[in-house]
Amino acid sequence: MGTDRTTKRPRKRPDTDGAPLYAALAQTLATAIADGHLPAGSRMPSLRVLARQHGLSLNTVLAAYRDLESRGLIAAHERSGYRVCSVIASPDHPLSKRAQRPTGKAQVDLMTQLLAAQAQPGMFDLAFAAPRGRRFYPTARLARHTAAVLRRTHDVPGRYALPPGSPRLRAGIARRAAQMGMRLAAESIVLTHGAVEALQLALRATTRAGDTVGIEAPSYFNLYPLLDSLQLRALEIPTHPRDGLDVDVAESLLQAGRLQALVVMPTVHNPLGCTMPVAHKRRLAALAARHRVAVIEDLVYAELQFQEPLSPAVKAFDDAGWVIACSGYSKTLAPDYRLGWVEGGRFTDAIARLKFTNSASQSLLLCEALAGLMDDGLDRHMRLLRRIYQQQVERVRHLVATHFPPGTRATQPAGGFLLWLELPHRCDAGHLFQDALAEGIVVMPGQVYSQGARYRHCLRLSCALEIDAHYESAIARLGQLAHSQLELPER
Amino acid sequence: MGTDRTTKRPRKRPDTDGAPLYAALAQTLATAIADGHLPAGSRMPSLRVLARQHGLSLNTVLAAYRDLESRGLIAAHERSGYRVCSVIASPDHPLSKRAQRPTGKAQVDLMTQLLAAQAQPGMFDLAFAAPRGRRFYPTARLARHTAAVLRRTHDVPGRYALPPGSPRLRAGIARRAAQMGMRLAAESIVLTHGAVEALQLALRATTRAGDTVGIEAPSYFNLYPLLDSLQLRALEIPTHPRDGLDVDVAESLLQAGRLQALVVMPTVHNPLGCTMPVAHKRRLAALAARHRVAVIEDLVYAELQFQEPLSPAVKAFDDAGWVIACSGYSKTLAPDYRLGWVEGGRFTDAIARLKFTNSASQSLLLCEALAGLMDDGLDRHMRLLRRIYQQQVERVRHLVATHFPPGTRATQPAGGFLLWLELPHRCDAGHLFQDALAEGIVVMPGQVYSQGARYRHCLRLSCALEIDAHYESAIARLGQLAHSQLELPER
Repeated sequence: MGTDRTTKRPRKRPDTDGAPLYAALAQTLATAIADGHLPAGSRMPSLRVLARQHGLSLNTVLAAYRDLESRGLIAAHERSGYRVCSVIASPDHPLSKRAQRPTGKAQVDLMTQLLAAQAQPGMFDLAFAAPRGRRFYPTARLARHTAAVLRRTHDVPGRYALPPGSPRLRAGIARRAAQMGMRLAAESIVLTHGAVEALQLALRATTRAGDTVGIEAPSYFNLYPLLDSLQLRALEIPTHPRDGLDVDVAESLLQAGRLQALVVMPTVHNPLGCTMPVAHKRRLAALAARHRVAVIEDLVYAELQFQEPLSPAVKAFDDAGWVIACSGYSKTLAPDYRLGWVEGGRFTDAIARLKFTNSASQSLLLCEALAGLMDDGLDRHMRLLRRIYQQQVERVRHLVATHFPPGTRATQPAGGFLLWLELPHRCDAGHLFQDALAEGIVVMPGQVYSQGARYRHCLRLSCALEIDAHYESAIARLGQLAHSQLELPER
Repeated sequence: MGTDRTTKRPRKRPDTDGAPLYAALAQTLATAIADGHLPAGSRMPSLRVLARQHGLSLNTVLAAYRDLESRGLIAAHERSGYRVCSVIASPDHPLSKRAQRPTGKAQVDLMTQLLAAQAQPGMFDLAFAAPRGRRFYPTARLARHTAAVLRRTHDVPGRYALPPGSPRLRAGIARRAAQMGMRLAAESIVLTHGAVEALQLALRATTRAGDTVGIEAPSYFNLYPLLDSLQLRALEIPTHPRDGLDVDVAESLLQAGRLQALVVMPTVHNPLGCTMPVAHKRRLAALAARHRVAVIEDLVYAELQFQEPLSPAVKAFDDAGWVIACSGYSKTLAPDYRLGWVEGGRFTDAIARLKFTNSASQSLLLCEALAGLMDDGLDRHMRLLRRIYQQQVERVRHLVATHFPPGTRATQPAGGFLLWLELPHRCDAGHLFQDALAEGIVVMPGQVYSQGARYRHCLRLSCALEIDAHYESAIARLGQLAHSQLELPER
């Protein structure tokens, strides 16, 4: 993949457009890295060579390298100068064309071990997408709103939660959804127990046991056991680390009538962090309508896009009601309150009934507290959060580049706080997980992302912790463990 | 059904044992009513005749009648003296022997209408088992505990809810479960989003789509669409309004290998209010183990037994781990908090994984608040609640006896706050529901309790509201509507 726009152009002194010289050079080099012309693990040209080539001072080239380093694109290695820690630009394994049971016993055992591990005191959890740190949530404000609801509506704990639940929260959700181009009626929003219940209800409203569901590969790790528990089969669709779902493949599967539903995360994908181009989103919505197949859109990280204005949801292009939008606030506002929502398009009534039948309703206290927070204004918090996470992700990319073996590649997320790593193929993330666990570090091994061996050399890291000395030493230790795997004789 | 112990004994002056004469007479008569020797709708003997038969004064007989009246067993009718408003002593329809889809379109439409109706402002909701009134929940204490958690653990809204959740609440649940003979380890308790999610997870851990599940008839109305949504078939097992599940029938179905799971509510059944004799419970636990079929026990009303000591749970006799206990606190402590639990016996690990996959975890704030309330002592509240509900149910039975047509029969619940009525067979509860709805009253028609016509003349009423003039006028109006159905020409 990777076009050759950049390097086929005659090497010339970069166009400065008034920007500092070093910045222009850094941009040229970053493009070369993204396009694969400077592959992962390769050594960067020496400062001296580059200075001569571009007619720049040594200091300017050094400044450009420092800039690339701060963005996690290159890293200084002892005694070998700078090396590229490239972004992952393309899926590197052919995907299965056959629907299959999404999880096997090995995955189940691994997930059980992961859940048990994070619950142990003293474990350093880099695995779960559970932000931990003062700056990541508006906790104090949320607590104040919660206390205010208790004071103002003192009988609220004794009111029976029945559907449809807080009109105020549903109005707030509809208002926020408009920021991503969705025009939703508050009345059609069904409140759920987190985004994962929203997905569950959407799947149950649109499929029957034995049906086949198209999913991205890799997907949200919990999606695999979820499909399994609903006795659904999974068909993996190639998903590009930069552009997301391969819509051509999705279309051919839809045309062949092979999918009864499609679950996608088009905006800030988990684990890849990518966002589909808007044209692809528009096309996906049209495909859902043309083939009369539900597209279940998981938006749980979508508000954490680094770029503004925000990329619109697929749901924004849904005129025929075949797109089901699912989201929640555990990643952005209120992780303890387990509040999510689903707007089911033409499946709205069925989903509302399923919600009542399966878990009744949501706590009015928590809903009103969250609604109060929303009404109180969130723009500043959301902007801050985007900036913080962008910085955190870059810092972790840099740490990975510094400590992991050459050949390690990392995604360059468009949002969120997750980093997906591809280690050299001889590494086994399952073994790495076990080795790290023994030292009190929990990571999410690629094995939970597929039944096959496709992601056995991959790893997902959460960047939503304080990136302090403790964090850095955990990454350094993980890097050492990966290094020592490479030193073992081939198995 | 109904034995003839009482009336075959020679009529003799009741053994007073030091109790007032009227009380002994009232007990003899109550037994005759329960056994069907004084059938529903029949006139009670005149005061004069009874006084002569028993050698008692008119005043003593009148006191006995007043006692029966206060217990809702008889009611004074204008110009016709006292009439029996009998308890329902036996199921009055043969049950289907074939597994069937539990809900049809008519039921779905009716439930949708019911849910929409209760959400409308100004509706008088007698349908949902959602207590409304100051005395029914320890609301102020719960609010104080919630505020205390917020103050003490001020970062709690910003902590990510991950399983297994609050150890304190799970310890509290295990402690309370011991009151019904269950010896549960706190570690094996999975916290859920209300008791209904507990049932859902238990069903999903023990069945696959297409399986057949034995259920009581009638059952919790939401069980029918729940089974349907899981693509399970239902096989109804006769359930005695006094003794609960017919264990003989359950055994023969288990022996024939016809059930993959069995859902029961052996203690304070919804809607019948009955509790199985302890010997039957013990036998059911043994049957589950012998046939290796999960018995899913719904305990959600079990703490509201009117008699103490409490009847033990089936789970109390579960040595082999085939009984799955499900419960929650929406009926007793914290209706807004949607907190339930499940102890899955040998299915515990599978259920814990399903919980994480399907809805992750429960809010620590709410769990800790409820745990605080539990640790603070609940015995007084629970004793008060039992007494209140017993009185309320009796008062509503009395109102029904006064206002409903002769021939109306009501259950005599062993606990809880629900009353199940059988109207004369010419009445149609579906029409009654529609007529009442037009006047702002919501009742639960028998039609939601079965796909067939079996309960079309039945009605469930909630007695967990203030029994004031408003309540009485609603019952009076319902009675008039039932009366006017009887006056219509036969359809």
